[in-house]
Amino acid sequence: MAQLIADRRDVDFVLHEQFEVAELAKNDAFAEFNRKTIDLIVTEARNLAIKEVLPLQKISDAGCEFDAGIVRVPEAYHKVYKTYCEGEWLAMSDSPEWGGQGMPKAVGLAANEYFYGACNSFMLFNMLTHGAARLVESFGTDEQKKVYLKNMYSGKWSGTMLLTEPDAGSDVGALTTVAKRNPDGTYSISGSKIFISGGEQDMVENIIHPTLARIEGAPAGTRGISLFLVPKYRVNPDGTPGEFNDVVCTGIEHKMGLHGNSTCSLTLGGKGQCIGTLIGEENKGMAAMFQMMNEARQMVGLQGFANATASFTYALDYARQRIQTKHMTDPPEAGPAAIIRHPDVRRQLMLMKSYVEGMRSLIYFNGMVQDQHHLADSAEEKERLRNLEEVLTPIIKGYITDKAFEVCSHGVQVYGGYGYIEEYPVAQLLRDTRIFQLYEGTNGIQSIDLVGRKMGMKKGTAFMAFLEEIRKTIEMGKAVPSVKPLADNVEKLFTTYTETAAILGKAAGSEKVLDAFAFTHPFLEATGDLTMAWMLLWRAAVAAPKIGQKKKDDLFYNGQVTTARFFINTQLPITAGRLAAIQVMDGAAIAMEDASFGG
Amino acid sequence: MAQLIADRRDVDFVLHEQFEVAELAKNDAFAEFNRKTIDLIVTEARNLAIKEVLPLQKISDAGCEFDAGIVRVPEAYHKVYKTYCEGEWLAMSDSPEWGGQGMPKAVGLAANEYFYGACNSFMLFNMLTHGAARLVESFGTDEQKKVYLKNMYSGKWSGTMLLTEPDAGSDVGALTTVAKRNPDGTYSISGSKIFISGGEQDMVENIIHPTLARIEGAPAGTRGISLFLVPKYRVNPDGTPGEFNDVVCTGIEHKMGLHGNSTCSLTLGGKGQCIGTLIGEENKGMAAMFQMMNEARQMVGLQGFANATASFTYALDYARQRIQTKHMTDPPEAGPAAIIRHPDVRRQLMLMKSYVEGMRSLIYFNGMVQDQHHLADSAEEKERLRNLEEVLTPIIKGYITDKAFEVCSHGVQVYGGYGYIEEYPVAQLLRDTRIFQLYEGTNGIQSIDLVGRKMGMKKGTAFMAFLEEIRKTIEMGKAVPSVKPLADNVEKLFTTYTETAAILGKAAGSEKVLDAFAFTHPFLEATGDLTMAWMLLWRAAVAAPKIGQKKKDDLFYNGQVTTARFFINTQLPITAGRLAAIQVMDGAAIAMEDASFGG
Repeated sequence: MAQLIADRRDVDFVLHEQFEVAELAKNDAFAEFNRKTIDLIVTEARNLAIKEVLPLQKISDAGCEFDAGIVRVPEAYHKVYKTYCEGEWLAMSDSPEWGGQGMPKAVGLAANEYFYGACNSFMLFNMLTHGAARLVESFGTDEQKKVYLKNMYSGKWSGTMLLTEPDAGSDVGALTTVAKRNPDGTYSISGSKIFISGGEQDMVENIIHPTLARIEGAPAGTRGISLFLVPKYRVNPDGTPGEFNDVVCTGIEHKMGLHGNSTCSLTLGGKGQCIGTLIGEENKGMAAMFQMMNEARQMVGLQGFANATASFTYALDYARQRIQTKHMTDPPEAGPAAIIRHPDVRRQLMLMKSYVEGMRSLIYFNGMVQDQHHLADSAEEKERLRNLEEVLTPIIKGYITDKAFEVCSHGVQVYGGYGYIEEYPVAQLLRDTRIFQLYEGTNGIQSIDLVGRKMGMKKGTAFMAFLEEIRKTIEMGKAVPSVKPLADNVEKLFTTYTETAAILGKAAGSEKVLDAFAFTHPFLEATGDLTMAWMLLWRAAVAAPKIGQKKKDDLFYNGQVTTARFFINTQLPITAGRLAAIQVMDGAAIAMEDASFGG
Repeated sequence: MAQLIADRRDVDFVLHEQFEVAELAKNDAFAEFNRKTIDLIVTEARNLAIKEVLPLQKISDAGCEFDAGIVRVPEAYHKVYKTYCEGEWLAMSDSPEWGGQGMPKAVGLAANEYFYGACNSFMLFNMLTHGAARLVESFGTDEQKKVYLKNMYSGKWSGTMLLTEPDAGSDVGALTTVAKRNPDGTYSISGSKIFISGGEQDMVENIIHPTLARIEGAPAGTRGISLFLVPKYRVNPDGTPGEFNDVVCTGIEHKMGLHGNSTCSLTLGGKGQCIGTLIGEENKGMAAMFQMMNEARQMVGLQGFANATASFTYALDYARQRIQTKHMTDPPEAGPAAIIRHPDVRRQLMLMKSYVEGMRSLIYFNGMVQDQHHLADSAEEKERLRNLEEVLTPIIKGYITDKAFEVCSHGVQVYGGYGYIEEYPVAQLLRDTRIFQLYEGTNGIQSIDLVGRKMGMKKGTAFMAFLEEIRKTIEMGKAVPSVKPLADNVEKLFTTYTETAAILGKAAGSEKVLDAFAFTHPFLEATGDLTMAWMLLWRAAVAAPKIGQKKKDDLFYNGQVTTARFFINTQLPITAGRLAAIQVMDGAAIAMEDASFGG
């Protein structure tokens, strides 16, 4: 039978051949995660994902129910949530001290690929719980950790993220939720929040809302924002949930997709009874929230990728099953053939494969970077790895989610008319995926983050660390004779890319700044293309030397080299065109008068 | 108030300044369609579209109801359908002899832009009725015309198009519906058809199904296919509907979008009581159907474009209303500003505007080509114009619908998180638009049509006629000093494009044929890009000389020149990259072994 969600052979290739994750076990911190254990974890996750979580996907599309402040998730979620929590899957890579499993991030990501690809709207509840818990772990007092952390890592309580307000979305600094100091050190919170994923639900005993608000008298803008922990039910001294904390769900959104996750509007303190506790320092809420947001951005990249890999496996299977009588079979007179034999279907499958595999490598690589950061001895190395993660984050969030939507659209296209019918899985995957380009900072914001913040960060050393990694892989590719022509092509593009980055960076710091910022998204796209080429070249350089050893592996390794060849030789010329346009940097979009847009 | 669906100033610009449609009135055939009449028609269509049809859009999303063979369209359709039919909008550009209005195609398309942009799923019923009626007009006997035509052009009866079967989609030749000759010259039809838009509905008295079927004993494949008219109710000698003709709707599809049009499965002759009459000659059904399909393909291009222009007008309006406190306003210290002032939002709006306006010009141009064909005296000129239409058809269907989906996705993105919420109009437009890339021949099929059929057709003269038109516009642009640099850039790309076409054409006729056919879609995309540049250059060349005459027009004309500049200088370099990749024509997608795709 065809594989579901992800190709296990490829997952293993990335874990063990491209990144040699089991090598991490040489360090005490990851000593128990040898190859056998890693494989067992991935197998367990895969089984649970396919058997229990995947059946939720179709069900999830019917949506959550809202009734007088109460949100009911699809009934089938409850049992699966229990199994998922009992399996301790929520905090795979977190500190065992607080209930985490302490496994390498890269391994946790492989497991999560299956879970998220099985049902993103179910998993989004867990993603936010995990993010909120991490916030408590990083910024909470011991008291706060004791009260909240174990309950969240175990999934007994869930977590959310309360940033957005009706007039404060990308522009977080405009928020108007107010916190009033109480004599006992707590704060009375009042305000309205919207677009709160999992803001209300019925799988858990309590919901913890990390909430951005402005303490009375604090400065305007982002500098006056503090972060509070606001539970749905106040927590009794013994740690049990107490009385209702005046956090009222006033409705859930009717969305294009991801119906199985409740997107809530919440009113806090409508009756003046909402109490929160400060987490971190006053007026430093944005910094704390940024940590959560950065993790969330990486996870959104994973969400997009997971739907893309699911759509690809469905499309591939369909293209192998669907017979048509003629057109371009090889040889043409051979008669009926599966549509995988049609050149334009192959082109689309190759594109899907290139992106999906490039994304997988990039996401696991980012996990490895964090694992190495965890293990690194020197402050310098820690700094380098943190920088690398900082540069990779907008690429993972922005580029992967853009391309995931494209991949899912190809998935629909490969199915032909059936792709548009909701009985088949690819339509929902496309709808569900569209949100990832929007939430946790639109992809426009990601591109501004890359160019306006990450490129110049720490005098450019972060960006240099990123470029250095690509250069290493190019050298590695050049050393493998059959891969060298591909490495040469990547190098050529790499040179143009670095020139373009310099031109764009210079313009961004000049009076041409607005022109430059009309090219941040094209630059993010070019950066992502290069990153895909980097990862696919790396794969080819690992695979090529192994060809001819075991016959049964040759198909896989040949596929790696051919996929790199496809992407580098058919897609990078387009990237070169993008870079050329950025270098010209025509200022038409800025020069245009507002009224000339018409309407 | 902001404009809805389309910018009337731009519609008028294309009709009267770019193409001078009113000049057609110098000919007897179009004598009554002077400028005043044309403007009146567009105004009437716009009013009806905005006041009556547009309110159906949101309603349509709730879908049609199916119950035991009966399909109920949304209740609100009925009244609007009546008004629409009474206004005689269904056959605007058809022969007055059979109830058409005889207006130029270009004018009818302008009116239809408003209707389709208002509610595509409502209009799809009318589109198919019109297409089916045209088939009767072209291939029917006088008897068939008398019975069917007036009833269809008036909208009293509707029409459909019965091609697809469960195992015969793109591969039409595989169909299995059978026609058995009866002694009276009629045929007994039996088979099952799927994906029949408007296959069953309750707005009309009778439904006429042009049906592809194979007469018993006919050859296999497309050479054995005949076309039949199969009514839902048999037609009495006096022209009234008679007894039920055993065409049973067995269900409607649950789709990603376009819910307000019933996509039906039909069983013909399940009780042996389905009678059809041959239309055209035996075994020549495909040729007749191709005429209908070609018209339908052009109309699908219009459908995509209409949603794109609707999405653009919404996004533009939203970007002007939505205030954010900061980021990149000009000057940065100016404080709160609408998001239209953000460079990345402007970039997206410019892209949307470029595509929408390029599409509008292309679609009206194709209408003009057909109007000129209607008027042409010489067989040679008629041939040239028909050829031109043949080449434009896959670009209109394939490229426009691909880009319409992108435009609608930008529409969602400009709205931010709100774009994903179904309360706002852009989400539905995106969902509705996805089908256009699939039906009436997937866009892969369109690209094969362009490269495999249209490029080489009539020894390449058709394709040369297309290139010649572009060249004329380049010369026109070079003659306008302020536009010359843009014309030069288009010319440069044009040269590369023609070289690439030659390389691709040669490869398609060689042993590299499969490699070549893995590049038909990239070539279609490059062709479409060039076509957009052609149309935008044309607009700029018309607009630029008028700048400085009337102050109130300058904003519009400047916008035309700046939009051309944006597209030509920021997008054509990417097209050049696409062409470079086609020239390399790496055969990786074909070289890949099927098993190497994984899974």
